[in-house]
Amino acid sequence: MGCVLGIDVGGTSIKAGVFTTEGELLDVKKIPTGDLADPKTFARVNDGLTELIQSRGFACEDVIAVGLDVPGPVDDQGKVGMLVNISLDADGLQDAIRSTFTNAALAFVNDANAAALGELWRGSAMGKDSFVMVTLGTGVGGGVVAGGKLVSGSVGAGGEIGHITVCEDEELVCGCGRRGCLEQYASATGIVRLYQRECAARGVEGAKVEHATDTLTVFKACREGDEAAAAAIKTMSDRLGFALAQISSIVDPSCYLIGGGVAGGFDLFCDDLHEAYKKYCIAPCAQTPIVACKLGNEAGMYGVAYAALQEATE
Amino acid sequence: MGCVLGIDVGGTSIKAGVFTTEGELLDVKKIPTGDLADPKTFARVNDGLTELIQSRGFACEDVIAVGLDVPGPVDDQGKVGMLVNISLDADGLQDAIRSTFTNAALAFVNDANAAALGELWRGSAMGKDSFVMVTLGTGVGGGVVAGGKLVSGSVGAGGEIGHITVCEDEELVCGCGRRGCLEQYASATGIVRLYQRECAARGVEGAKVEHATDTLTVFKACREGDEAAAAAIKTMSDRLGFALAQISSIVDPSCYLIGGGVAGGFDLFCDDLHEAYKKYCIAPCAQTPIVACKLGNEAGMYGVAYAALQEATE
Repeated sequence: MGCVLGIDVGGTSIKAGVFTTEGELLDVKKIPTGDLADPKTFARVNDGLTELIQSRGFACEDVIAVGLDVPGPVDDQGKVGMLVNISLDADGLQDAIRSTFTNAALAFVNDANAAALGELWRGSAMGKDSFVMVTLGTGVGGGVVAGGKLVSGSVGAGGEIGHITVCEDEELVCGCGRRGCLEQYASATGIVRLYQRECAARGVEGAKVEHATDTLTVFKACREGDEAAAAAIKTMSDRLGFALAQISSIVDPSCYLIGGGVAGGFDLFCDDLHEAYKKYCIAPCAQTPIVACKLGNEAGMYGVAYAALQEATE
Repeated sequence: MGCVLGIDVGGTSIKAGVFTTEGELLDVKKIPTGDLADPKTFARVNDGLTELIQSRGFACEDVIAVGLDVPGPVDDQGKVGMLVNISLDADGLQDAIRSTFTNAALAFVNDANAAALGELWRGSAMGKDSFVMVTLGTGVGGGVVAGGKLVSGSVGAGGEIGHITVCEDEELVCGCGRRGCLEQYASATGIVRLYQRECAARGVEGAKVEHATDTLTVFKACREGDEAAAAAIKTMSDRLGFALAQISSIVDPSCYLIGGGVAGGFDLFCDDLHEAYKKYCIAPCAQTPIVACKLGNEAGMYGVAYAALQEATE
């Protein structure tokens, strides 16, 4: 009987899950690796993965697919583009894994896209033919699924939802060098900044945020009746609803999934978000559901396992 | 040997093409039908189509696929939605065709989507896995192709490029009831209106436009050095480039195709359009080509023939 590995790739460690071919997660293991651009560390990856599958009664030749989830662009052909936040030798890692798991198909997937695939396989989008997932974290990522397949894009920019322009008058510059991106409003960083703007505009001090992505404090303040927090969340919902409305005019998905750390406040903003979406979308799309994700931060692991399994069985 | 029919459906006539299964267009025939919501007229459709294929040596049972191109929404399941501009009983027409061409697979496709498929089969997008076609006519339509398949959308709104919001400050109301849609800037109607605005703002009379969609006059004026016409075309290109940039952040197609009557002025606006697109898009997508379509107003006929052929051979 075969098994599948789904691997979240970080800069100095990986988190791997071993799955049945039906998508049941059997076990998870975090493997500290050191610098993943250093060839010497790849042996550690293989040892950790081998240990993980053996603990569940599998041998290396039982692994039929290995998926790797990377924080950067991966194009239609599965080629990894420039990674700005981590140091990773994708080819080296791939060769190392291939040498140990000789029967396995390999697939690299962008992390936000992987999360979408995970939700498709075993999460909120099970059975859906089309949907768009929006991951609200430190930044804003996304995954577009159409006809049951991920739209990764010709240069890997499919699902770069965070860089839809939602305010042409914005003066602050986004990480991408442009202005007025959704990410500036709907990421954790964006929400904290919107809150600080609202406090400044009202001349109030507001709740003390601990760091640049501390949405927990903003959400807590909102629950306790802080008007600046409520206004910040309303602005965020308005711009997110506007962005989803644009997406509907392009791919018209059967539903939207909201994930990432910020989705922890989904109950706080979902009414405003629905209202904004309906206000901005074309009439035929007004009923498109917007729901929260199910798999939390394991979605990516599920998704890459699924992508690799598809490669193996194609 | 089999053949394929591709049919442009209008309110009181149809235009049909007979194709080889390799996509060679053998003959075209316009068939006046009368009201296509009246069951009595369906016999005329069948007679006309039968005559067309017989003139090329085919019998009714040789027709392996019939595609129908309608000016309105068609969902993922091929179901025709509400048609606002023509009177058509889609089910009745389908039954009638099925009764004559008993071996044929049938497919309905939205007209703008059909044009995209036509360009994919035999036009500017041959061999492309992904692209977005923008049809600039009286309105603005579009077709999104990803993974070699049309993204028609859960309620048939996939490729409704004309209703991407490109100016939140617009005061005029679009046909869809919203404000600031791309269609208000990049359709023939939009271009004529932009020209009239520019003339008014400059206090000049400008060239005399013949009707609300007379872009020929605007393009001619521009070629003759009319500054108001040049400014109108620059605004149109700017907003179209902005819209394409949004699309790239969502589906990242390998190219854009510009079609429809307005594409007759492509040489006039393509430099401005490229410049605007590059200014607004995320950096990795800056090199995405933007080209003119090849098949002109026969693209839809090619596209529905192709869609039906895919149904037949699936």
